[in-house]
Order: sequence, then structure tokens, then C-alpha cells
Amino acid sequence: MKKANKKVNAAIIIIGNEILSGRTQDINLMNLSKWLNELGVKVEEVRIVPDNETAIIHTVNFLRKRFNYIFTTGGIGPTHDDITSKSIAKAFNLKHGTHKEAYKLLKNYYGNKRFTIGRKKMAKMPTKASLILNPSSGAPGFIVDNVYCLPGVPSILKSMLGGLNNKIIGGKKIFSNTISIKTVESEIESSLEKIQKKNKNTEIGSYPFFKNGKIGVSIVIRSSEINMINKCSEEIKKFIKRKNIKILERN
Amino acid sequence: MKKANKKVNAAIIIIGNEILSGRTQDINLMNLSKWLNELGVKVEEVRIVPDNETAIIHTVNFLRKRFNYIFTTGGIGPTHDDITSKSIAKAFNLKHGTHKEAYKLLKNYYGNKRFTIGRKKMAKMPTKASLILNPSSGAPGFIVDNVYCLPGVPSILKSMLGGLNNKIIGGKKIFSNTISIKTVESEIESSLEKIQKKNKNTEIGSYPFFKNGKIGVSIVIRSSEINMINKCSEEIKKFIKRKNIKILERN
Repeated sequence: MKKANKKVNAAIIIIGNEILSGRTQDINLMNLSKWLNELGVKVEEVRIVPDNETAIIHTVNFLRKRFNYIFTTGGIGPTHDDITSKSIAKAFNLKHGTHKEAYKLLKNYYGNKRFTIGRKKMAKMPTKASLILNPSSGAPGFIVDNVYCLPGVPSILKSMLGGLNNKIIGGKKIFSNTISIKTVESEIESSLEKIQKKNKNTEIGSYPFFKNGKIGVSIVIRSSEINMINKCSEEIKKFIKRKNIKILERN
Repeated sequence: MKKANKKVNAAIIIIGNEILSGRTQDINLMNLSKWLNELGVKVEEVRIVPDNETAIIHTVNFLRKRFNYIFTTGGIGPTHDDITSKSIAKAFNLKHGTHKEAYKLLKNYYGNKRFTIGRKKMAKMPTKASLILNPSSGAPGFIVDNVYCLPGVPSILKSMLGGLNNKIIGGKKIFSNTISIKTVESEIESSLEKIQKKNKNTEIGSYPFFKNGKIGVSIVIRSSEINMINKCSEEIKKFIKRKNIKILERN
């Protein structure tokens, strides 16, 4: 895995009316974000936009200049509402048409007889794009510059990530430690704030939860330096002990 | 319920490093979107931003002028990483401090003895904000102009929506009909496109799925006119019958 010696960030653009309407629960963000984190890339913004050409073009062109990597999900199928590839071509002012390599790949995948007009549409994309291979269902994603276009179906998207591991040049990996305790935020806010103030390069998050009838707070410590995570964790455990708070879970 | 005679839209801003990192799966978007849809408000953009003041201020100020309603989730608790209320005050150039009504409300909720310094922090917000009552856990959300600030914990957020029903002036409600069929998109894309082209004011979406070993496509027809949904559904059912495709589910 290649490594950059600095922070590397990404933005994700989720394209799809079905996510905005609440009909479909997105889970691609979670999968992409965890995978990118392993590669040392931090997701710093996500935008969910409708199947609308202007919205997609504006969003892509705004974000691609501000983040190292952009990932789009959704809208690369063969139906009329799949407008991602055309919109990406327009955003980059590139020709959109049958991509020779994608065409060949799909033809091989389906065989001559099953390579219908509908399926041929999946070879249409910016003609100069690089392909992202799809080991689940044949139809490839594509890359233009720093923009990586992936499908919306979670299982297919996930199966395509392995092929990208060597194309993403990540920076320092962010590690994290979570301590879940039986308390409410107002009991620990001042102790936690002191530790955060003393350790500015470490990110300390506090997340209250209510599950299975249990009330608690998860404290998450995130840093690229494991030493710093250990240091903060020790300081946090000290005040937990002092306040006589029960630890529910650690990981 | 009040009604506007035009389209009413909204954007949602999800604030939280834990969502961006993939640690926590957001479900607030789905709950908010479905609730807003019932009120005749269409969610047209979602942005997920980190716990960062500049990011929050820019996002709020950009979106609030472009959408009828803005909803933020997360970051209104008492810990150091809860910076939504301060950021909203800055975005609107308003004083941030102890909100008298919120203070009174929290004092009543906890009682004098349990109203600790930590809990008093939850009364800090733009001092002129209107409150959003919280029937689950006391701490209120707040409204500034068209920006509605809600907590991140899904069960608490959900419990607060009922109290907002009369404050949101929605437009025409969008209805939908879903027909799930056993096929692949490439088999139906041309028939579907023809129907979409003939019925431009109706939104026809096509969503492939792979679940429990079943492959299929859900066709979703969305419109504010039930007549149009019925008309398109009939046209879709005709080609399904003609192509001898099995219907898996209708709703």
C-alpha cells in the first residue's frame, strides 16, 4: 500500500432520490468510510444529492478541487434515472459515449447473445475514464481524475473496493479507542473538556446512547498516534475511577 | 396542518465526526425525511459535516437561503464537542448564552438538586431562539429563523417531531407506489424510459436489489397527483405483463 506523508481526505457524494426520500437506508457511507480509514484517508464531508444533472455537476466540481479523493455512489446503471456517468462527463467537459474497454468487458461477461441493447448502455461513460472492475455483476465503475464512481447496490460496491486498494494513496491511519460508560454527559463534560484542551491533536468525541434499556456515553478517542490514544485513555480512566462510574465496554 | 400551495423543500445537515468516520450509522435522515414527506416537504439535499465550527457555519449559511427549511441533527449536548448551538449563533450573528426559558424548563425537569453545572450548559443557545420541546429527556432543541436544531440520538429526535407538526407549513404531499419485479434493469430500461418521457411531472425511479438470494428491480413512481401515479402504474404493469415478468411485491 502506497503512503503519503500527510493527511489525505475524501468526500463522498451519494446520488439518489431514494436515499433523500427516506425509502432506502444508505449503508455505503459506512462501508466506504471504514475502508478508507484503513487506507489512511479521512472522510471529511458527505453530500446526498438527487438524480439531477445540475446538482451532480455542481457538487462534483465544487468538491473535487477541495478534497484529495471523491467517491460517488449510485446512478451508473442502464435506466433513465442513471445519470451519473453523463453528469461526470459534463463536469469534466469530456466526451460521453461507448467506452471500448468497458464494452469488451461486458460483452465477455454476458456473451454475444445476452449482450442486449440495455446492457450495452452500461458501457457508456466518459470515453477516457479508467475502469473500476466489478467482480459481482460485470458492469464496471470508473475513475476520472480524483473522482471514483461506484454503483449504489451495497453488496456490489463493497466487492469493488478490493480492486482499488492499490490506487488510493493514503496518509497516516487514524486509530481509535472507545470507552463506553454508565453515566450521562453532564456528569463528565468538564473532566472530558480538560483532557481535550490538554491534548489538542487528539480528537475526543462523546456520544450518549440509549439501547436495550441502558443509558450510557461512549467516549471515542481518535488520533494517528497510538501513544496519544493511550495517554488520553489513561487520563479518562482516572476520572472514571474517581467518579466511581461503571465501565460497560472497551474496544 | 397548515398548507402552502406550492412546493416546499428542505435540506438536512447531519453534524458529527462519528457519522463521517463510519462508527455510527445515521438513521435520523430516514426518520426526518419520512416525517417531512407526510407534511408535504421534500428533502432535496443532505450534507454531513464534521464537528467543526467553520464547516457548520458555512453549510448553514449556504443552505438556509436556498431551502425553505433546514434541519440540523447532533451536537447540542453539554460536552466540548457539542458546538452546534454556538455555531448557529455565529452563523446568524446572534448572542449565545443562557436561554431563560430553556433554563427554567431544565430546572423544572431536573429539580434544584440535580440541576448541575453540566446540565446548565444545555440551556446555552442563541438567546432569542424558539424552543423545540423534548418529551424524552428534557433538553430542548431550538429554532432560529428557518433552521431547526435537533439532537443526534435517534429516539430523542423522533420524540420531538410531534411537537413541530404545527410549525412546518408543507406543500403538496408526494405520494408513491412501488412495484417490485423479478428482472434486471437492462430488460426494462427502454420501456421505462418511454413512460418517464411521456409523463414528465411524475418521477419514476428504478432500483435494482439483491436480497435473500433474490434478484429484482423496484420501480418507484412518485408524484403529488395520485391520478398520475395510477396512470404510470398501469402503463408499467402493461409492459411487465407483455414481457412476462413476475411481480414480487406491490405497495
